[in-house]
This record gives sequence, C-alpha cells and structure tokens, in this order.
Amino acid sequence: MNLPYPHFQINYKVYPGTWGADGLALAEKVEQVSDETGANFVLTPQVPDIRLVARETDLPVTAPAVDPVEPGRGMGKLLPEALAEAGAVGAVINHAENRDTLADIERKIDRCQAVGLDAIVCVDSVAMGRAVAAFEPDQLLFERPGDISTDRAISRSHPDRIEAFLAMRDEVAPDTKVRVGGGISTAEAVDRAFELGVDATGAASAIATADDPANQLRKIGEVVAALS
Amino acid sequence: MNLPYPHFQINYKVYPGTWGADGLALAEKVEQVSDETGANFVLTPQVPDIRLVARETDLPVTAPAVDPVEPGRGMGKLLPEALAEAGAVGAVINHAENRDTLADIERKIDRCQAVGLDAIVCVDSVAMGRAVAAFEPDQLLFERPGDISTDRAISRSHPDRIEAFLAMRDEVAPDTKVRVGGGISTAEAVDRAFELGVDATGAASAIATADDPANQLRKIGEVVAALS
Amino acid sequence: MNLPYPHFQINYKVYPGTWGADGLALAEKVEQVSDETGANFVLTPQVPDIRLVARETDLPVTAPAVDPVEPGRGMGKLLPEALAEAGAVGAVINHAENRDTLADIERKIDRCQAVGLDAIVCVDSVAMGRAVAAFEPDQLLFERPGDISTDRAISRSHPDRIEAFLAMRDEVAPDTKVRVGGGISTAEAVDRAFELGVDATGAASAIATADDPANQLRKIGEVVAALS
Amino acid sequence: MNLPYPHFQINYKVYPGTWGADGLALAEKVEQVSDETGANFVLTPQVPDIRLVARETDLPVTAPAVDPVEPGRGMGKLLPEALAEAGAVGAVINHAENRDTLADIERKIDRCQAVGLDAIVCVDSVAMGRAVAAFEPDQLLFERPGDISTDRAISRSHPDRIEAFLAMRDEVAPDTKVRVGGGISTAEAVDRAFELGVDATGAASAIATADDPANQLRKIGEVVAALS
Repeated sequence: MNLPYPHFQINYKVYPGTWGADGLALAEKVEQVSDETGANFVLTPQVPDIRLVARETDLPVTAPAVDPVEPGRGMGKLLPEALAEAGAVGAVINHAENRDTLADIERKIDRCQAVGLDAIVCVDSVAMGRAVAAFEPDQLLFERPGDISTDRAISRSHPDRIEAFLAMRDEVAPDTKVRVGGGISTAEAVDRAFELGVDATGAASAIATADDPANQLRKIGEVVAALS
Repeated sequence: MNLPYPHFQINYKVYPGTWGADGLALAEKVEQVSDETGANFVLTPQVPDIRLVARETDLPVTAPAVDPVEPGRGMGKLLPEALAEAGAVGAVINHAENRDTLADIERKIDRCQAVGLDAIVCVDSVAMGRAVAAFEPDQLLFERPGDISTDRAISRSHPDRIEAFLAMRDEVAPDTKVRVGGGISTAEAVDRAFELGVDATGAASAIATADDPANQLRKIGEVVAALS
Repeated sequence: MNLPYPHFQINYKVYPGTWGADGLALAEKVEQVSDETGANFVLTPQVPDIRLVARETDLPVTAPAVDPVEPGRGMGKLLPEALAEAGAVGAVINHAENRDTLADIERKIDRCQAVGLDAIVCVDSVAMGRAVAAFEPDQLLFERPGDISTDRAISRSHPDRIEAFLAMRDEVAPDTKVRVGGGISTAEAVDRAFELGVDATGAASAIATADDPANQLRKIGEVVAALS
Repeated sequence: MNLPYPHFQINYKVYPGTWGADGLALAEKVEQVSDETGANFVLTPQVPDIRLVARETDLPVTAPAVDPVEPGRGMGKLLPEALAEAGAVGAVINHAENRDTLADIERKIDRCQAVGLDAIVCVDSVAMGRAVAAFEPDQLLFERPGDISTDRAISRSHPDRIEAFLAMRDEVAPDTKVRVGGGISTAEAVDRAFELGVDATGAASAIATADDPANQLRKIGEVVAALS
C-alpha cells in the first residue's frame, strides 16, 4: 500500500483549468496547504500530466484510469508499468464515468498490484463493494453516481450508508481502505465522514472549479491533519 | 495540418522498452537519425510520456488515443486540450486495437481539429477509408489488421491495394494525407510504398523491438530524405 | 432489397405494451390499417417476437439489432441467419441507442446482405450518412438523436436538413433508400417528409404509446397510400 | 428459482444447425431423451427461437443474454419482460463471449429477478464467483474460458478447482446453485462433476456439433437421472 491515510483526494477529471501548467499550479497550491497543515492530500491529474505533477510536487499521484494489458501490442492502452514509471503510485478502476467489466476489474487489480500500484476501485453500493472486495483491492471508493458533482454530501445526508459500507469492509476485507466521495467538499462534510470511520475522502468538481480552492483546502486540511 | 510529409512514423504501442527513460532514449536515437539523414520522423509514445518526449526532442509527437470529450466531467478520459498542451500535434483514432464507434470517430475528428491536433484515423479497407473521408480527417492510416506485427509488407505483397486506396483518396478527399502501415519495416518496403504514392509510412513492433533500431532507422531515413 | 417503398416504419423499441401478445395485437392493428388503406407499413418488434409477428401477419418485419458474427461461437449474439430464418427481412444497425464501431458497421452490412437481409443503418448527420454510404447499405435512416421521442418533426422544423441529406444520397449512393425519423408522427409531418423526397419515414414512441394508434395510423396510411 | 436441479444444460450459441427448424429438431431430440431417461435438461437457444422452443417442448428454456433495461426506449435491447413473456425462465449474464460491466451484472440480476427470471451469471474463477455471489444470483456458471470448446473436462483435469468453487459457494452463497462448464461433454465427465457436488453441468459445441447427439445425450441423461 503506497498511499498515506487518512487523506483527502482531489480528482482533476477533465475540468477546465486542471491540465498542463494550470494543473501544476493547482497541485502546488495543494502542496502548500499540505505543508502548512500537515494533512495528507492525494492528486489524480489527467494522464498526460502525471509525470509533471509527480516530479514537481511531493504529493502522491494516482492515475485516473489504467488498462489490463501486458507489455506488447495495445495501441492507446494505459500500461500499468508506464503509469508507475511516470510517477503514479495508484490507479483508479471502474469509475462511474468509465465502467469496467467484472473480468477487467480482476485483471486490472492484479496488474496494478504486480507493478506496485495501489488498486483503487470505485463502487456504487454496499453489494458492489462486497463484490469487488473478493479481489482484495487496496482501496474501495464508495461513491453514489447520483451524488457526483452535487453538494449532497453523503456523509451528512446518508451516514447510515457509510456505516453499512464500513461494516461490510470490516467483515470481508479488513485490509482494504475505504474512501467515500460524492459531494463531500466542505470541512464539515469531511469531518463527518471521518467521524463515521472512513479512511479517506475527496472531491473533484468542488475543488477543481472552486473560486478560492486554497481557502477551502486549508479548512479541509485542518480537519484531516487533526486525525493523523 | 501539423505533421511534415513525407515521414516515417514510429508507434511505441506498449512494447517493452518503450516507456519512460527507455522510451526517451529511443526517441533520442530517432532524432539523431533524423538530424543525420534530414528525414522526417514522427513519434507516437504512450500517453504518460507525450510531454517528456515532446519536450526533450524536436520530433513531432502524436497521441496514440484521444477521447471525444469536452472539458468537464469524464474521469480517465483523454481530453484533446490536455494532449495538445502536453505537446502532441496529432492523435490516432480508431486503431484496430482500440476501435471507435462511427459517431465517436466524427466527434473525435471534430474535437481534435478544434484544438489544433491533426486527426489521424485508422482504416482497414478502401471502403472504410472512403467512409472516414466524409469527415475530412488530416490523415488516413491504411493498415490491414492481419498485416500488423508481421513482415508481410503490404507495399510489396499487395501494391494494388495501396493504389486503390490512393485512387479513392484522390477522388473523395484530395486534401487528406495517406499513411500506409502493416509490416512495413525495411528500407525496401518503405521505398516501394513511397513509389506507389503514399505520403507517409511507419512501423511499430519492427522498430520498437529491433535489436539495432538505429541502423534500421538510418536506412529508412535515407529513403525518406531522398523524397523530401 | 426486400422492403417495399414508400413505407411507414413502426419501431417497437421496448415500450410498454409492445411485446408478446400485446405486440402482436399492435401488429394486427397495423395490418388492418394497411389492408384498409393500401399503404405499406414495416414493423420492428423486439427480437423474441420477430417470429411471432412475421408468422401471424403479412407485414414485413425487421430486426432491431444484429451482430456481425458467423455461425459458431458467440453466446448471446444475434446471428443474421437466425434472424432471417425467424422471418426478418432486414436489420437495424448503429441505432443511436445502440452504437456500432465503424468496423462493425461494415461487417454487419456485409453479413446482412450475404444472408438476404436489408441492411438499415442509422445516422445522425449528412456527413455520417456519406460515411456509411461507402458500404452501400440498403437503407439509411437519418434521425437526429435530439429529435427522438419528441414532437419536433424534422420534416417541418428543418426541411433543409432532409434536402441536404437527399442531395448527398443522390450524389454518392443513388441506389440506397432514405428513411427519415425523429418526431415524425402526424399525417402532416409524414406528408411533408414525402414531399421532400424521402423513401420512407416512421415512428417509435408516438405510435407505440399512442392512446388510439389505429386512428393515427389510418391518417398516416392514407398519406402513404396516396404516394404508392 | 425456476430451473430444476440437477440438470444438464445445452447452449446452442450460434452453432450451425441450431436455429429455427433445426434448433427445434435438436430440442425435440433432447426432450425425447429427457422423457426416456427422466433426466432434467435445460436449453439455451438463440433469442429469436426462445418462443418456438418454449412452446413446442416442455423443457425449461433460458435466454443466452439479457439487457439491464426498463420498458421504454432502448432500440435493440433484450428486455427481461419480453424474454419472460416469450417463455424463458432464466437468462445468462456475463458470458465469456459477452462480458458485462460489474454495474450491469448487478442491474441485470435485479431486473431478471424482478420479472421472475433465474439470473445465471458466468464466472471464470473462484474470486470472480465470490464477487458475483454478493448479488445473490440464482445460479453461478463456473467455466474457465480456456476450457470452452475443448475436450479438457475441468471435472477430470482440475477437480480441485471445482471443490474450491463449491467451498466458496457454501461459505458465502449457500442458496446459489453451481453449474460447471467447459469441456464437459461425456457421461464420465458429467458423472465426475456431480460426484464433486455440482448442481448442474452442461455443454455447447460438444452437443450442438455432435454427429449423433441423441446417443451422447442418452448416456448423459442416465447419469443425471440417477442423481435425481
């Protein structure tokens, strides 16, 4: 397991202002907040920027996607070895915006772990989390598609769902970390998520498109640092 | 149109020894041959290495894949803007190892051209080339899947197919460049392809996995340079 | 070419009340209107109902989907031979709700025509129609996804688009029939479409979910019959 | 749960001689063997033939595929309700030749069970079986892709894998039935599979392409009947 816990993850997705020089500037802002607060942050920039962000900051970087291929043919595929060499320490699998077959989830987890990448698998429900737990991923990201890009923080609206998810994890995959996402973008929502027992949380649009991300990140960083 | 013609394209795919520092070393070898011979070479490294190769060499770099997305949501997608910012000047669409829907081919060409990337679309046949020509791509790559990774250079085994393809291009898409691939890896096969009238040719495995790629590239470079 | 022209096509999709006995009852209503008015109607029921509708009515039946497979392996695939044997005389390819790769469009057209099925390919735009025309399908269905399931009949709102589409067909594929869909569900919209020169038109939700489809079909049938 | 156990399942796939009148003739042969031996057989014909086989024989019929759609839009989709109305009592999900996303597996199981179809989910490995067990399917079909269409009966070559699979089932999904496939096409291999404790077994190519399927089926039927 490469990623530090607890942490707050920032998904760049393909939001405006998150690639190239802009993406690096955002990463440097996050790094400054990390240094100031002592909190762990993890970044998921776009694939062409993984090397840039990994080299220019000390923050752990994960790839937003990965393919279950071996070295050889496979035009346009994201080879786990190449992501690792570029500086990624983990990769995201089965995101709601990029669904995988069950067979590929198994192969992607295996390939990631074989090259030393943390396998981070997105799931929508307790049942889907239980399913993926069979493959022993490093992290399960529990995020309900309907909550993505909203301000309906699941940690506040449905704490029982998080509790049920964590109980499932404790039962079938105690070594797997749980991150919760979906509308968790305020220090209050982050705090509530950690109170419920999650190992990590994070956001995409709320940070990537914020007017003053540094201020928002600082408040979140203080919450995360208090747990560490 | 960004790419120089005539040229010889090198597809890294995900072959062993083609990513990260190794991939850069291969790029630098190609650049040296380009400098020595005066021939145009174009490189298609893996996505995480686009920025590295584009920054450290003067060779034109194309992305091996692209997604038809707009800035915004789209976890794990390859945004045309981000590829361009990383240094790509073109992107490959509909490769036989990464097929696209017809609707996505149209959208990918539009998105690439809107951000200044050359749209390079792979096709298997004259009819498929005629189909894609309707969208006015910058380059059609004519490559029969059965010839990929073989030494059956189509320019020698089936020159009539190349002639038919070029005749179709002249008729329906005279502004589109034609590259021919599939087993074209010797100077003789390259020479024959250009004699038939192609604008470019290239190889993947034959170069990426060659024992002495520099020697092979030099002979190819001399052929290409003689045409320029 | 199996289908009679001009005609009005009814797509059942998977609308409530369109499968099994209900789907047959709808087919029989359409047949009665066809008999009364002398108009050609074509039905596209769900795959499990193709044989039932083809056997119990005299209307031409097309399959809503088909796979580009040969007899052999291919669990769950829709083999062209099996669709034909069940009574289909055509098959729909690349519907906006069921997109195909360019390579599969070519293979599906070839496979359909090899077993005597009309190949009916859906496209969104003039450019996409021009692309598919390269494969010489029997029918192009021009339907803008944004018009599907609306009452914005393209024949009334954008007659110029239909005219441009027909001009393209006349230029590059004069033997291919053109059907126009998307919100064409009243006799007036049907009439206008045929005035513009289309070979066929049709509807899905407007008929499948109508309170009194027979009355609506009768008015449409009179328009179609007047052209025959 | 609709299917009778123990049983021997026959997958028609799209093998030559298995659709339409030929497919019905094969079904009638199987029914005759079932009547003679008293053994349960289950048939999985192609989708266009489900109604024909279900109506003309008394054998339980399952659909070779299903889509996770609700009644409404969805051109070309296989609606669970329509499959059930045509006579299917179960549907196959995630076959190795027709892979599903994890999200679709969950939705397909839910939709099948909601309309009274047995949800039969194919898996390659113990881990994949454990994953799918989280969704409580009616049947898990354990079949290693490498064994499909061979004569390497897993019940003879790797009985330990079947034992491990059954142990997993007993632990996490005791109500789910286990079928084992992949090269099990002789009475000896069938017998060995049932000795190991499976609830069902079956074959595709070995029966669909046999010279004398009736003779082979009779021997298998005697084994199955002896268990009932």
